[in-house]
Formats: sequence, structure tokens, C-alpha cells
Amino acid sequence: MGKVRSPSLAELGERELLRRLERFAPPGQLADDAALLPSVPGGRRGVVSSDVLVEDHHFSKTTTPPESVGWRAVMANVSDLAAMGADQVVGVTVGLGCPGSLPWHWLESVYGGMANALHCHGGHLLGGDCVGSPMVSLAMTALGTVDQEHLICRRDARVGDWLVCSGPHGLSSYGLSLLRSGVVNPEPGSLQARAVAAHRYPRARLDVPQRLRASQPPGTPWRVAGTDSSDGLAQALHLLCGEQGLGGHVHRLPLPGALAGLPDGERHCLWGGEDFELVLALEPGWAQALLGREPGFRHLGTVTADNHLLLKDARNGRLRPFPPGKPFDHFGLRMPMGARDQGDSKPPTAGKNTG
Amino acid sequence: MGKVRSPSLAELGERELLRRLERFAPPGQLADDAALLPSVPGGRRGVVSSDVLVEDHHFSKTTTPPESVGWRAVMANVSDLAAMGADQVVGVTVGLGCPGSLPWHWLESVYGGMANALHCHGGHLLGGDCVGSPMVSLAMTALGTVDQEHLICRRDARVGDWLVCSGPHGLSSYGLSLLRSGVVNPEPGSLQARAVAAHRYPRARLDVPQRLRASQPPGTPWRVAGTDSSDGLAQALHLLCGEQGLGGHVHRLPLPGALAGLPDGERHCLWGGEDFELVLALEPGWAQALLGREPGFRHLGTVTADNHLLLKDARNGRLRPFPPGKPFDHFGLRMPMGARDQGDSKPPTAGKNTG
Repeated sequence: MGKVRSPSLAELGERELLRRLERFAPPGQLADDAALLPSVPGGRRGVVSSDVLVEDHHFSKTTTPPESVGWRAVMANVSDLAAMGADQVVGVTVGLGCPGSLPWHWLESVYGGMANALHCHGGHLLGGDCVGSPMVSLAMTALGTVDQEHLICRRDARVGDWLVCSGPHGLSSYGLSLLRSGVVNPEPGSLQARAVAAHRYPRARLDVPQRLRASQPPGTPWRVAGTDSSDGLAQALHLLCGEQGLGGHVHRLPLPGALAGLPDGERHCLWGGEDFELVLALEPGWAQALLGREPGFRHLGTVTADNHLLLKDARNGRLRPFPPGKPFDHFGLRMPMGARDQGDSKPPTAGKNTG
Repeated sequence: MGKVRSPSLAELGERELLRRLERFAPPGQLADDAALLPSVPGGRRGVVSSDVLVEDHHFSKTTTPPESVGWRAVMANVSDLAAMGADQVVGVTVGLGCPGSLPWHWLESVYGGMANALHCHGGHLLGGDCVGSPMVSLAMTALGTVDQEHLICRRDARVGDWLVCSGPHGLSSYGLSLLRSGVVNPEPGSLQARAVAAHRYPRARLDVPQRLRASQPPGTPWRVAGTDSSDGLAQALHLLCGEQGLGGHVHRLPLPGALAGLPDGERHCLWGGEDFELVLALEPGWAQALLGREPGFRHLGTVTADNHLLLKDARNGRLRPFPPGKPFDHFGLRMPMGARDQGDSKPPTAGKNTG
């Protein structure tokens, strides 16, 4: 791109900005007041997820290139869809707040990152809204579809289930720590480079629902408890077990091999977050079938009735409480989104009239 | 509510804030990573719309009570759904950014306003995200459904169509001007009170699609061009006519009677915005049938081929260009949302790889 000065949004003006953003959507997609979703054949249901990213809270221009800001926003939302069992992305809407002085070039790269991420999973930019704001914020809503008979729910874990995750945890957090300490261009192929890439360009596990279906043993009914690990593996286990009044014994942390020797490896793995893997609780026979088919998946341990999350010490085999830590996104409050069938129930009412 | 001090969000903590927000959604609605939409019977399609409101740009704590902030956010989005022909609201997701010091009481009232607005039209709080941010912003995505055979599109106006709107324009803008000039508690029943209420508690016209269907003359095929007037009547006419290379002759402005005598009445009507009415272009016979059934609707004029928006002068009957003005929301750039069927088209690709 060279050093051509990029016009600011205020310089571009609204019409021109809109014209430029249209490039990131299919032709005609942005022509109306709202976006139409494709109709979905019977047996499938729409799923929706929303996330807000705020500059200097959820990303920093010093550690996150704009392509990565857009990419990560899409992947974070798609990860939530996958955690419900969705295997198809319809698209995203984007509510962007930014100052008029923001260079177009930066924004173009953000939308380029979104388009690339959507290209990975299918789905379109469906539309959105851009408003003036003192700082950059990105509110995204993703829409997908799920097979009605193959939902994944957070609250479906049972005592005796195996705890399984779809991949290793900790690399993204390690990458962020490297970026924060000033590592900008690590040597290609090095652990540092892999960690930075894991942080900047994570992949949502939209493939997991299909892998679960493929491994389901005949005669085993569909029951999969699961959530994504966007706020850290420890937080995911808390949501799967602790919030149901259950516990979990974790026999082996899913550390990437290269992190095992690092002093902070365990912390990155348990509390780092943003690996965007799925953490599941399954009937043991099914879990074994899944682990047999999918070598990338990891067996973590077992769901217990004792309401404690305990970790087996690798040195002496004893169970100990999880080392203390905070979920990754301690600035944010995720308002989880409901899986209940709202078919014909009444709308909520507030406690007073607007008069 | 009295003068009980409200705890700040930072004082409440995330868990308690989440617990409090759950009150505004159906039981269990916020239990999972994403929200399920009800499946929709055949012939209907999902419609989605997003809007972002930023404090001091789109609302001010001095002119807009928090109930109204939530109410208006819902109505603005529902209005966009109605402008596509939607007649059913599924619900909204809310991406909230706010400082930890924000009093809970304020936020509670915002969500109360949203719940009341949803109660008007049906639909639920589906979920969302709350994040820390230096200023308050509210990114909302609304989902609804539309009958596939009864879409309203912005680009379907034809020369000779009648221009019709679903109600008068200007009261909301006049109300805002009163609030900005310090009118806080106008006398109940006065024009000032009506204008302030119109600004604070507008109603989206989700009823219009049904009224259109009811008035469609036998043998007249479905073709309705339309958009909502959230950014002002002049802007809506520009979107309906000007952007298609057409023009419009407006014979009569839809001024509320009480505004007709005000020096700024015409400006409020044409450029004020946020009346959230629909502005339509229809085959003349159908338009006449509609106007006959719906006395609240107004006949504005006719779509022309000459690519100018002209206004008939009430004094001398001459056509003159629209008086100059700016669309209401000049801080914002609405990225309109697509109505095209994206059934199986390819996802967009960006101009470069993320590497």
C-alpha cells in the first residue's frame, strides 16, 4: 500500500464512505432499510449472537492490525454460533462507531479482515450502521443456522460426562503477551510467530458440530453440553459445570506442547482466553469415539457432583483447586443469549409504563 | 423511585449486572452463547436491521430520559423492519458500551424503555453484550419477519406513482428543538407536550404493511416502493426517487396542523427526521384506495422522470426546489441493509489476504 496518505472519514463524506463500504458486500446487498436473510429449509433454526469491541479495551492499535480487528470480531461471533451447534453462517451486521478523523485506510482494512473471515465460513456482510463517536467501537451481530435436532446447550452437562475440548489452549494469550512486551515481527515459523498469529487470526470452530454428529455412536441420544472458550478455559468449565451446581476434575490441561515449558504456560492455558475452541461435556462412550476420530481434540477430565473445579497436579497426582486467575475479558460483561424456544411466549414487560 | 442512590456498574460487578439484566428477557433466554430465533412458517423470511446510538451524538442525557433512549432505539430499528414490509418482530440484541461509573438506575430505565417498546410490537430481548467504554453507546440489531410476496423495496418507484406517507412529519423535530431550548415540562395536552412526547416516544409503523395489503386493489400486482423517514422526509424522498434517477413533485407537505403556522414548520417537516413514518410510492389507483381507507395517511405528490425534487408553493402554485437543509442525523452514516436474495451467492472476498 505504500505511504499514500489516506483521507479521513470526515474528508470522504458520508456518501463516499458508504460507496466504499459497499465493496465488502454482495452487489445490491446494501440497497434497502434492512437485510433479508435467506429462508432456511425445515428443521433448521436461526441463531444470533452479538459482540462489542471497544478500542483500548478489546483491541489496541499497537498490538492489533486493522485486518485482525475485523477478522477477530467475526470469529468471536461465529464461535458463539458454533457453541450453539450452528454449522452455517448467514452473515453479520456491523455497528461501527468512530471519529471522523479516522483514516479510511484503517477502516478499509478492518472490513477486509471481516470479509476474509466470512469467506472462511460462508456468510455475508448484511449491513449495519456507521456513526460518529470519540473512539472506535465495533458492535457485531452474527446470524447463522442450526439443525433443530443437534443443539449444543451450556446447561446439559451430567455427572460422569467426559470433558473434551476441540484443541489446545493458551497460544493466543501467549501471543498477546508477546505483542504487549514489544515483540512485533517474530521470526517466521518460530513459536513466537505462531503465538502472534494465533492471537491475531484465530479460527472459530464451526466444524465441530459436524464432527460431533459424525462421531455420535448409534443408539446414543443427542445430548451435548458446550460453550466456547473465548473468555478462557477456566471460565468455560465454570459455565459448563459450576453454574449447573456441578464440578469438574481436570486430569490434563490442553497445553500446546511448545507452551508446556513456559513459566506462565498454565496461566495462559486456563485464563488466557480467545482461543475460540469449544469445550464440551459428553457421554463417555461418545467422547471416546470423538477423540478416536479427531486427534486434535483433547480429553480434559470428568464432570463431577462435588461443585468444585479441581486440577490434577502433574507431579504428585493430587487434585488441587484451579490456580487463581481472571477471565480474559475482564472489561466486558457477556450477556449470554438464550437457547430457549420462544415460539409463542409473551413478550417481556417492564416494571413501569413509559407514560 | 425517590432519591435512593443507585449503585454504579463497577460497584454491582458483572454477575450482579447480568442478573439484573435477565429480568428484561424471558426466563432462560440468556442461558446460552447465542440466541435461537423461532422457526418461521413457509413463505416468510427473516429481516434484520442494526442501529448505533452514541451519547451526545444521538441522544443527550439532558433532553432524553433513559426510558426514551431504550424506547427510541427499539422503535428506530423496528421502523427499518417495517420499511421492508415486515409485520412481525422477533426481537433485538443489544450491544451496550458504558463506563463502570454509570449508575445502574439509568441503565435499568433504558432496558425498561426497550421492553416497553418491544411490548408494543411483540418480540423479545434476545441477548447481547455489555462492555466497558468511556461513553455510553447502544448498538441494537432487530430481527423480524416479512411475507416473501409482500416486500417493500426502496428502488421500486416508477414514474407516475403517487407519493404517500403514513402520517404527518415535523412534530418530533419540533419537540427536540423545544427540549434543546430548555422546555422541560410543558403543560399537559399542549402542542409543546405533544411535540416532546413525539420526540421521546415515537411509534414505528409496523402496521403499515398490513394496511397496504388490505388496500391492494384486485388485479393490481404487489409493487410498493418505500423507506422510513427516520432521517427526514426530504431524505426519504431522495432515497425513493433521486437515487433511482427519478424526481418527485410534492404538492402538499404533511405538516401537522399545529405546526403549519410556525416559522420553522416547513424545515421541521422536511428535514427534522425521527417521525418514523413510512414514505411510499404506489400505483395511483392503489394509493387512492389506501388514502380512502386510512385517513391518517397523506398524499404528497407524484413520482416524475425529471430527476428533481420540487415543492409546490402554497401561495402561488409554482414548483420550486426543496428548501435547503440537512438530513437529521448528520453525525451518522446509515449503511442500508440489503433486500436482495443472497440464497446461494458467493460470500464477498476482500482485496487482499490476511496472511
